Amino acid sequence: METNNKFPAPQVKFTLGSGPVGVHERVSLALARAPLYHMDPDFSDIFRETTDKLKQIFGTRQDVFMMQGEAVLGLEAAAANLVEPGDKCLNLVSGVYGAGYRRYFEMYGGRTVELAVPYNEAIEAEAVEEILKREGDVKLIAVVHSETPSGTLNPVQEIAALAQRYGALTIVDVVSSLGGMPVATDAWGLDVAVAAPHKCLGGLPGTALMAVSERAWAKIRARPNPPRRRYVSFLDWKDGWLGEGRFPFTPFVTQIVGVNEALTMRLEEGLDNAFARHDLAARMCRAGVRALGLELWPARESIMANCITAITVPPGLEADDIQLTMNRRYGVVISGGLKDLQGKLLRIGHMGHMAQPMYVVVALGALERALHDLGYPLKFGAGVGAALAAMDDGGEGNRTVSIYP
Amino acid sequence: METNNKFPAPQVKFTLGSGPVGVHERVSLALARAPLYHMDPDFSDIFRETTDKLKQIFGTRQDVFMMQGEAVLGLEAAAANLVEPGDKCLNLVSGVYGAGYRRYFEMYGGRTVELAVPYNEAIEAEAVEEILKREGDVKLIAVVHSETPSGTLNPVQEIAALAQRYGALTIVDVVSSLGGMPVATDAWGLDVAVAAPHKCLGGLPGTALMAVSERAWAKIRARPNPPRRRYVSFLDWKDGWLGEGRFPFTPFVTQIVGVNEALTMRLEEGLDNAFARHDLAARMCRAGVRALGLELWPARESIMANCITAITVPPGLEADDIQLTMNRRYGVVISGGLKDLQGKLLRIGHMGHMAQPMYVVVALGALERALHDLGYPLKFGAGVGAALAAMDDGGEGNRTVSIYP
Amino acid sequence: METNNKFPAPQVKFTLGSGPVGVHERVSLALARAPLYHMDPDFSDIFRETTDKLKQIFGTRQDVFMMQGEAVLGLEAAAANLVEPGDKCLNLVSGVYGAGYRRYFEMYGGRTVELAVPYNEAIEAEAVEEILKREGDVKLIAVVHSETPSGTLNPVQEIAALAQRYGALTIVDVVSSLGGMPVATDAWGLDVAVAAPHKCLGGLPGTALMAVSERAWAKIRARPNPPRRRYVSFLDWKDGWLGEGRFPFTPFVTQIVGVNEALTMRLEEGLDNAFARHDLAARMCRAGVRALGLELWPARESIMANCITAITVPPGLEADDIQLTMNRRYGVVISGGLKDLQGKLLRIGHMGHMAQPMYVVVALGALERALHDLGYPLKFGAGVGAALAAMDDGGEGNRTVSIYP
Amino acid sequence: METNNKFPAPQVKFTLGSGPVGVHERVSLALARAPLYHMDPDFSDIFRETTDKLKQIFGTRQDVFMMQGEAVLGLEAAAANLVEPGDKCLNLVSGVYGAGYRRYFEMYGGRTVELAVPYNEAIEAEAVEEILKREGDVKLIAVVHSETPSGTLNPVQEIAALAQRYGALTIVDVVSSLGGMPVATDAWGLDVAVAAPHKCLGGLPGTALMAVSERAWAKIRARPNPPRRRYVSFLDWKDGWLGEGRFPFTPFVTQIVGVNEALTMRLEEGLDNAFARHDLAARMCRAGVRALGLELWPARESIMANCITAITVPPGLEADDIQLTMNRRYGVVISGGLKDLQGKLLRIGHMGHMAQPMYVVVALGALERALHDLGYPLKFGAGVGAALAAMDDGGEGNRTVSIYP
Repeated sequence: METNNKFPAPQVKFTLGSGPVGVHERVSLALARAPLYHMDPDFSDIFRETTDKLKQIFGTRQDVFMMQGEAVLGLEAAAANLVEPGDKCLNLVSGVYGAGYRRYFEMYGGRTVELAVPYNEAIEAEAVEEILKREGDVKLIAVVHSETPSGTLNPVQEIAALAQRYGALTIVDVVSSLGGMPVATDAWGLDVAVAAPHKCLGGLPGTALMAVSERAWAKIRARPNPPRRRYVSFLDWKDGWLGEGRFPFTPFVTQIVGVNEALTMRLEEGLDNAFARHDLAARMCRAGVRALGLELWPARESIMANCITAITVPPGLEADDIQLTMNRRYGVVISGGLKDLQGKLLRIGHMGHMAQPMYVVVALGALERALHDLGYPLKFGAGVGAALAAMDDGGEGNRTVSIYP
Repeated sequence: METNNKFPAPQVKFTLGSGPVGVHERVSLALARAPLYHMDPDFSDIFRETTDKLKQIFGTRQDVFMMQGEAVLGLEAAAANLVEPGDKCLNLVSGVYGAGYRRYFEMYGGRTVELAVPYNEAIEAEAVEEILKREGDVKLIAVVHSETPSGTLNPVQEIAALAQRYGALTIVDVVSSLGGMPVATDAWGLDVAVAAPHKCLGGLPGTALMAVSERAWAKIRARPNPPRRRYVSFLDWKDGWLGEGRFPFTPFVTQIVGVNEALTMRLEEGLDNAFARHDLAARMCRAGVRALGLELWPARESIMANCITAITVPPGLEADDIQLTMNRRYGVVISGGLKDLQGKLLRIGHMGHMAQPMYVVVALGALERALHDLGYPLKFGAGVGAALAAMDDGGEGNRTVSIYP
Repeated sequence: METNNKFPAPQVKFTLGSGPVGVHERVSLALARAPLYHMDPDFSDIFRETTDKLKQIFGTRQDVFMMQGEAVLGLEAAAANLVEPGDKCLNLVSGVYGAGYRRYFEMYGGRTVELAVPYNEAIEAEAVEEILKREGDVKLIAVVHSETPSGTLNPVQEIAALAQRYGALTIVDVVSSLGGMPVATDAWGLDVAVAAPHKCLGGLPGTALMAVSERAWAKIRARPNPPRRRYVSFLDWKDGWLGEGRFPFTPFVTQIVGVNEALTMRLEEGLDNAFARHDLAARMCRAGVRALGLELWPARESIMANCITAITVPPGLEADDIQLTMNRRYGVVISGGLKDLQGKLLRIGHMGHMAQPMYVVVALGALERALHDLGYPLKFGAGVGAALAAMDDGGEGNRTVSIYP
Repeated sequence: METNNKFPAPQVKFTLGSGPVGVHERVSLALARAPLYHMDPDFSDIFRETTDKLKQIFGTRQDVFMMQGEAVLGLEAAAANLVEPGDKCLNLVSGVYGAGYRRYFEMYGGRTVELAVPYNEAIEAEAVEEILKREGDVKLIAVVHSETPSGTLNPVQEIAALAQRYGALTIVDVVSSLGGMPVATDAWGLDVAVAAPHKCLGGLPGTALMAVSERAWAKIRARPNPPRRRYVSFLDWKDGWLGEGRFPFTPFVTQIVGVNEALTMRLEEGLDNAFARHDLAARMCRAGVRALGLELWPARESIMANCITAITVPPGLEADDIQLTMNRRYGVVISGGLKDLQGKLLRIGHMGHMAQPMYVVVALGALERALHDLGYPLKFGAGVGAALAAMDDGGEGNRTVSIYP
């Protein structure tokens, strides 16, 4: 696809995909500060402060730590530390990320039972309970809260409650929900929650944000030979940083300063306000997409996540063409589908700093133009107009109600 | 006016008024570099390089220098250096800025003749010629190329040609046109052209960008006592910096680095491309505004400037309310009217980095919302839609034709 | 002078001259924030906040404002606003800057009386009183507090007291003293005090920081035709910004944000701590210079300013060679002499952020190397060693005693 | 230890330890650029460009990739990918890092043979050959090029040649040598070389820089079940990024931009110039340390690494006290000893941007002060003076000779 000469090259880029997305200048400029030596007491103070803020955001009084790697490091590490050979593990699959977790269970010796639903659906708690009852000895349950590749949300609160009742521990991927939608680690009884800075928290990729319950530590401590002195080890952080205030290896000093700034901004804004903001952006975007005659991918509104809007690529068009046109002609970057969903979806992110009404307008404006350029019939302004109108509709109470007293 | 709770506080601000407007991160980050001592030869290199780039942008091989103050310093200085007591000065008035120049002529002893048209009109060359012929001995003509407060453009090329023919020197305010619309200092024969970085050039306020012709220097040199060792002195820069490479006083070292980066970006983009970009943004905005049932302030399309769109405030609404609603609820900053036009206009800038289709969409989206919030009846998406549609119309040839061979 | 190949090119530059000097990253990164529209209420808040901090630093409850230009704009403006044709004006000259003020007095019609001392000396209050008594009707006195080109300090407190007694107004250049040495505008009774951000305040050049007394306003208001609607006008700021909260023209929005950050840092540190820091750096530097067998330029220790150390160039060497060697080989930038003192002096700044013991060590280390490279006999480490030793000597009480209760 | 009131709190921090150390503003400001989506083709371009530059710096035409974690991830991954259960592995130990590698060999099933020398010594090639001959079937050899905790250098070129002769693969830790001292991956025949940006390359921690030979890939491909879809997997990068240009998971987009800038600067400077710069800084530092009567930790000059100077803590003093005094009073951060060497050493880094003569002066100046404050007898200036004098000595040819034709 050629970019037509009549369109001046965009001088700016709006990054509005599945993450990393654009960040606030406060976060960017925090990264430009002179790096500290990681053993400088001033850096320890920053690391501790960041962890403390993270506890508030996770809604936990149990342990929180930051692994020095991408979110997938934290997800793999959860299995590496918790799975003992032979453990029966329930993997809940409602999308690409859920499906992928099976490999971690098996890599570390777990026997996997799987509950799968179509990728435009959400897990139902009843089905989970049925399996837990039937299997009897499930030790671990893995579930993705917000399935970014599908734009859907699983009922983690209910699933975690069942896990507690049936004696299983939960490994919960809250990577794209934390900070943008309610996550209440302690109140819901999550055992290992894994997040990342570069989705709704408004930071950059490079850190796996970990919350670990006492129940989880007990299972790890009970193992004959849990991972130690390895990149995936939880105990290196528990005994090292949380214990003696000593890093197991050089942490990403500058990245941590950026995470700290993002968390600071989030707490200054207030979590509830941030949830409302993500909810508003998502509602606007859905309204706009529908008004353009496009279909939302998730089966129903009630299972849609507020961090990202997944759209079915209309017949006759290629996702790649749409994305490239939006990027090259209009400077707007959105995401396509992942793995099984490649070529089938377009995804517009409403995450962190970019979960703003005016960025929804930008995304829809560029989408309208690109669809038009590629021959899709539409009335210019229909999508943006519906989004603007949706601001008056008011949020759905259940989404924005506070879980933080 | 209270901001309603249902609108989450904007986390970002789009600055889209009459300047300063938002700038590219390259410009912002250039300002964050460690400052140099102004007598460090490395700084002299930067200053010289910046001046050389500025020559290309002004389209001149005559002298260019940067006064260390706002554009008004350069405008006042033009009179201070060129006007001799008793000089007959023709002031061309088609807006607030044009009207304001009279004070400089008179402050420095000029006898002013004025040609004024309504503030939604442009000067006509014929009327100028009539005066020049009638008066016979006009020494100086002051004219504003782009009347930012009115969103209009004066025919500077024609006026400058008349000035040459009738033996007058021109003082031309190209503050909001340079870099966004064709300005050909030498080809048009401008004598003193005054610009600033913070309009179409994509920089920050703090510098008066000056192009001065040999004819102008000759008039200054012929004066018995031209300004020297004063803040308004041209000769301090001519003899100091342009002569001996010595600054008359400490220049704004960091600001200059920012100007240099903005000019570098403009030359990398190509001036013609930048003109096309400003033209496109302006055409989109005008189409959007009209589609909302609003009136453009300038009397006709042919005199509209591409750097800013001036809109008549619709009856029953207050400009302040609209601006404040856009700012506080939607994070979008536009301008109102100045002085005589206060309360009468809204103005949306398309300048420098912000002259982008997607920023026009943002401005119109927020304008739609604010008008609606304040009770103005509209169909959401009408403005944005018309703007998006206007991208297919093609520019008017005469605006974007290159003047740089 | 050729740079020898054996010296790797410096990868960093230490700017330690007479200003601008290096600034803290907080100041640099403040400049990288997105610019605001100057009529955005959020910018007005920043401007007001900056002015309020400046009042604390000036030690005044009278008016403070920020002119949009270099310090020399403020100095010229003081004369432009205060001098009425025929006013008898006393110009106190102990250096290049003092000598230069005469032109402002005369440019605006003042009749100048001058008291001059050699440029390595300071004005004595007794001599000032003698003139005031003798002349009888002196209306204005101009004095430089810290004569940066000479590294000396004048007894401004005593001179201002005399001015009050004899009915004259004072115009005081505190450009290189404010923030680094005590300046008590109200307690000392200064009428117009002019400062700048890029010396001891740790900011960048581009702003003239003005404190104006009620007495000064009274003289201006009593003039038949004080400057208005001009770049040098005080009343434009008094009636505009201080009156209606309206800027007379576009202020340097980004520069103001930088000034604000520098002032914030200074108040966080505490003025007394900052004075002690400048005093320490200056004492270290003097001790180091003397230990190298070099002569300090000022006649006596008691008149030396803490912001800069002026050194007599040793016989047989050229100032330019020393500066260029320090710059090109060792990455260290210091200043030479100005105007009458050109070629005679080297000057090492201890200003703002750079007034740190370790930067004194850098300056002296590079000076030792450059002197050695150019054939001056010295024992390496002698200068730095004496500076390090001087840290134990304790400051002179009279310099660091607090004037802020 | 209390900080005495007579010392003003440092306003700046010089980070001069074992890494992370201070970085150039170009690197810092690169991190402040708006993040890109990792699937944006513009980001792929940056990633590819960074990898290409890295090849030049590694001196290799074989594969180079960037793992998204700290250097220890790369080191662990080397074992995870290369060690097959039962492989005989030779671990060369001349310091804390060398000693630590044993665990990786054993964790992944290797049978370890170890050659250890005291931690102030270097491995000798003859002893290595003896073992290789004796054992006959060594498959892998792990060696640390620059033992940062000891400040020593091992003869990696000779060891790699032996490995080739005896059919073993090498895993070489060049973390603190790459960019500061010659490393010629292909010419020396290294199989897996692991580096990091935050030592001599002048970047920030967060990336493991990997060079992998064809021989190494062959061994991995020959394994029945090499690591895949795991954080330590090499093949995920080989098949993903190097194969299809697809990232196995979200890379640290901003960090990569910083690495790119650091590598760009290094190539602009020229590797040989950078080596000379590190050599000069190290020679200056050693001379200064000796002049203070302190002992260098490594047994001989010929095995000292140019990236860091390791100093034996003098009797009667505590390393912690010295470090804290330098940090809190003088703003200078250096390192102490690690693990077995804790409390025994002080270490001053000369890495990347901080490998500058004037930073050596700062480190020694602060060290002199801190030693004095704690009662160690010294003549101020002795250390700095010796360092300054050492600039005239000239480098040792063998260190700075170019290996890049």
